[in-house]
Amino acid sequence: MAGLALGGRGRARFTVVVRSRDPKELFEAALDGDRSAKARLLSLIERGGDGAREISRLAAPRAGSAYVVGLTGAPGAGKSTLTSAILKHLRGLGEEVAVLAIDPSSPFTGGAILGDRVRMQDHATDHGVFIRSMATRGHLGGLSLATPGAIRLLDALGHRWVVVETVGVGQVEVEVAGKADTTVVVVNPGWGDSVQANKAGLMEVADVFAINKADRPGVPETTRDLNQMLELSAELAHDADPEAPLDQGWRVPILPTIGQSGEGVGALWDAVLTHRAHAEASGVLDARRRFRRGEELREIVARRLEQRAREIGSDSRWEGLTEAVVAGDIDPWSASDEMLESVR
Amino acid sequence: MAGLALGGRGRARFTVVVRSRDPKELFEAALDGDRSAKARLLSLIERGGDGAREISRLAAPRAGSAYVVGLTGAPGAGKSTLTSAILKHLRGLGEEVAVLAIDPSSPFTGGAILGDRVRMQDHATDHGVFIRSMATRGHLGGLSLATPGAIRLLDALGHRWVVVETVGVGQVEVEVAGKADTTVVVVNPGWGDSVQANKAGLMEVADVFAINKADRPGVPETTRDLNQMLELSAELAHDADPEAPLDQGWRVPILPTIGQSGEGVGALWDAVLTHRAHAEASGVLDARRRFRRGEELREIVARRLEQRAREIGSDSRWEGLTEAVVAGDIDPWSASDEMLESVR
Repeated sequence: MAGLALGGRGRARFTVVVRSRDPKELFEAALDGDRSAKARLLSLIERGGDGAREISRLAAPRAGSAYVVGLTGAPGAGKSTLTSAILKHLRGLGEEVAVLAIDPSSPFTGGAILGDRVRMQDHATDHGVFIRSMATRGHLGGLSLATPGAIRLLDALGHRWVVVETVGVGQVEVEVAGKADTTVVVVNPGWGDSVQANKAGLMEVADVFAINKADRPGVPETTRDLNQMLELSAELAHDADPEAPLDQGWRVPILPTIGQSGEGVGALWDAVLTHRAHAEASGVLDARRRFRRGEELREIVARRLEQRAREIGSDSRWEGLTEAVVAGDIDPWSASDEMLESVR
Repeated sequence: MAGLALGGRGRARFTVVVRSRDPKELFEAALDGDRSAKARLLSLIERGGDGAREISRLAAPRAGSAYVVGLTGAPGAGKSTLTSAILKHLRGLGEEVAVLAIDPSSPFTGGAILGDRVRMQDHATDHGVFIRSMATRGHLGGLSLATPGAIRLLDALGHRWVVVETVGVGQVEVEVAGKADTTVVVVNPGWGDSVQANKAGLMEVADVFAINKADRPGVPETTRDLNQMLELSAELAHDADPEAPLDQGWRVPILPTIGQSGEGVGALWDAVLTHRAHAEASGVLDARRRFRRGEELREIVARRLEQRAREIGSDSRWEGLTEAVVAGDIDPWSASDEMLESVR
């Protein structure tokens, strides 16, 4: 469907469908407002490799203006419904927004397989909203590299708000969730849920808490529990990763929301805006972005070294060592000594 | 508490608490049946680094006899209850078993923080059962290295059954779940659940399906859905990773269970035993273990190269490049070219 693209940069505003697979042509078309080119670029980023790399090169000079809001929590916490309510709120304010859904349980994810497409349909024909799911299992770097790459692209294409929805379970996923400018952690009323958030490491990445499905009983108790755990975990987080910039002087607000009706969503978004203002004024935003870029750079270097390690391994040396490890003749660490010799 | 250690190797059978932090002393004590030494070794493996490495070296020559059963599924599927029922079943058969719980939502995990300790209490004083949670956020290699390391240790210490419980959400977690000798995927009755399992990549790693909480409606529908998706995903899995050994000639059984009452757990375990026999006879088990060892070796090599990259990065070069990336003067991939130069 050809449509009117909002938010172009003074270029042609009508969608032109480009059938190219060349990143440069697709990028130019996406700048001109071609949504299908944008989607294709994101697919290339998902796939990783040279395409992702080229897009990163094209996007970098134009990026730096988007604000990234992470939204995370356990499966079933109602993240997608809440994201949808936030989209509605933002559209009411006249804002444009892009959503990256990285949650395998999200109804935003995975094409037409789920019956529950209703909420997404609300936004399907709205050109001020861009929704995209990401699935990156199996390739080099996976989510850790695809997510910042996708954000960089959306940023370069003029999006000023990027909402990244991730499931808050899993080592990589929680790391990705913790790399937003403002991270909203979604829990539900009930003791078990706040404990689970704590154990999954979500306490450490939360800038704002939403107690979603707040029409259920237990909101005051959950608020109290979260407050107690926040106090404890601030110290633990610093111990675990002393390099990560500490956001001192920010008291994590805890807000009740009902995603289904939209109740509390305005106040939640106001808390995001307040955190943004605090992060900008205090230098926390700069520090985080610097840290994030450094992490991404180290991750890329590590992944490319990994690739190099795998290439070394295409010869018979790996096989021999693997056999020795299988037979118990050598432990894998000692075997790795031998492999590393050949990288020098 | 000093206790009688079952399953020693003809050594002293009374627990001697060793206060050492030396892997060698701890390993000797653990071989003599000291459970606290075993726990401390697992903590060292969790922490990674030189300790984990040394333990791997000690354990490798004694390992190779344990059979690893993975149990995975979405949070709330009832994995821990089912694991507990499996423990009970195995104890009834006179088998000893070790459990590694890698699920942040598991009641086995994380010490005394959860109120729901009842099921674990069932086994707390039983010396034929060893239960241990693993949390490895943040360190080199994380779960991908700590899990095989912990399995190798338990194997070397004489455990013949190791059950690894992982949450089936998250890139790394699903990978870890897929590396057992037999993997049981736990779902609940209901269409959404099987779809979610599919999207999370669990369809590809399942050797046996348990439809847990089978007293709820929807079991026949879920069985049908799973069968349909299994047919589809066998092809997809092969496309995604042609190197991974395909388990041809095995039709994934789908079994209803009720973890709470233990109903169906005997049949589930029989299916695990049938799969084991098939895997052993067909050579699939050997192929999988060889593949797994190769993966572990490559992972270790990659992580050590990553470590090397981080060490290089302690100089001012990273800072300069990170600043340039933050400023948008250079994209992170081009920056990584410069860093990689210095590793050569």
